[in-house]
Amino acid sequence: MRMGRVIGNVWATRKEDGLSGLKLLIVQPIDAHGNSIQSHMVAADRIGAGVGDEVLITSGGSSRFILPKENPIPIDAVIIGIIDSTEVKRGDIHESSDRND
Amino acid sequence: MRMGRVIGNVWATRKEDGLSGLKLLIVQPIDAHGNSIQSHMVAADRIGAGVGDEVLITSGGSSRFILPKENPIPIDAVIIGIIDSTEVKRGDIHESSDRND
Amino acid sequence: MRMGRVIGNVWATRKEDGLSGLKLLIVQPIDAHGNSIQSHMVAADRIGAGVGDEVLITSGGSSRFILPKENPIPIDAVIIGIIDSTEVKRGDIHESSDRND
Amino acid sequence: MRMGRVIGNVWATRKEDGLSGLKLLIVQPIDAHGNSIQSHMVAADRIGAGVGDEVLITSGGSSRFILPKENPIPIDAVIIGIIDSTEVKRGDIHESSDRND
Amino acid sequence: MRMGRVIGNVWATRKEDGLSGLKLLIVQPIDAHGNSIQSHMVAADRIGAGVGDEVLITSGGSSRFILPKENPIPIDAVIIGIIDSTEVKRGDIHESSDRND
Repeated sequence: MRMGRVIGNVWATRKEDGLSGLKLLIVQPIDAHGNSIQSHMVAADRIGAGVGDEVLITSGGSSRFILPKENPIPIDAVIIGIIDSTEVKRGDIHESSDRND
Repeated sequence: MRMGRVIGNVWATRKEDGLSGLKLLIVQPIDAHGNSIQSHMVAADRIGAGVGDEVLITSGGSSRFILPKENPIPIDAVIIGIIDSTEVKRGDIHESSDRND
Repeated sequence: MRMGRVIGNVWATRKEDGLSGLKLLIVQPIDAHGNSIQSHMVAADRIGAGVGDEVLITSGGSSRFILPKENPIPIDAVIIGIIDSTEVKRGDIHESSDRND
Repeated sequence: MRMGRVIGNVWATRKEDGLSGLKLLIVQPIDAHGNSIQSHMVAADRIGAGVGDEVLITSGGSSRFILPKENPIPIDAVIIGIIDSTEVKRGDIHESSDRND
Repeated sequence: MRMGRVIGNVWATRKEDGLSGLKLLIVQPIDAHGNSIQSHMVAADRIGAGVGDEVLITSGGSSRFILPKENPIPIDAVIIGIIDSTEVKRGDIHESSDRND
């Protein structure tokens, strides 16, 4: 999974069947220290993430398993969690942070 | 998903079975501000996107689920939506834009 | 899908079952203007592509669906079409080209 | 698979169903000589890896097969092994190392 | 598929079920001319590749189909062939090479 920060919304009226009602968020991927890495991506969200939240994103074929496998939908990224906190070792220093308070 | 701008068409007469009649568009990936990122890609389109449109693209194995799973086809990118508008937070500024008017 | 130019062949006698008889071509990925991008890759071919042809390539899990899903094989790239022509918008100019004449 | 070094933990209370109880570790990808490469990633762990361990990571759709295929979950990276040792040829020199003692 | 050169071995005692007995090799990806590209990766091997061999590697979800689909395992890279020879067109020159003699 990747970490990311939700930075916006995207709307599309004309779309493939099966995507109606699915919320789509624009996400800036970040590393464990909160620095921006890579390009913006768009991820589906069913757990109520909002702009400013730090989140966990699953990419690729596994992302469609937020829905029963009998109804596969053509998405390739989904927010699977809203990050509460991280703890990262940097050399000999442990750095804890609460991410979405 | 990635955002992209449709920049052209590609035609192929000799192709794998199952791809007959599938429209193929050349897409320039873009970030949330409309800047070009990464290399051109080719995506299948069933929703009527055209040159100049900003679109949402699903890549990888999930893209074949625009068709019933009983008939998998060998494609790895599909246009799943035509972007109407985006709203992106930049520092403390919110930036709204209508993309395909 | 990606566009590419076939630049060579690769042969392997010792290989995984299920790959016998599958033609393997070396491909240089290209952008819509024919410029080389990214590294060489190897793709399976069943439609008769040859050195010099410009082709469409499907990567990842979808590529195995050139064969019935009852017989999945461990390949991750396949040539799905031989490009006849492209039309690309560059600023306000439309650029057409016949690719494999 | 990729090699990586576990550098931290990440916690998320609000998450997709099916992910409850799954331990999530932050991993720094490394090359065969232990040098950091690429960006941080987050991987699920069921085998008891801890901060400082060097591990093997499977990415993409295959990672969900740590669980029976009847219960697919939306994850895209999993720690599949804790590295004991590696042996790498560098020019004409063989370099052995015990990684997690 | 990618081409690569086997440069070493990696051992892991503690690992996910289903991976017991699977040989894991460290591979340096190469282009068609034998130049190193990208970072080291780890691939499963069932066909007897060894250090120094040039090989073909399948990545992603398809790699698990070296085993029957009833028993999916969490791997994302597998050696599917040992390269005998390649023939690459460079401008107007054809370059043949025997790779593993």
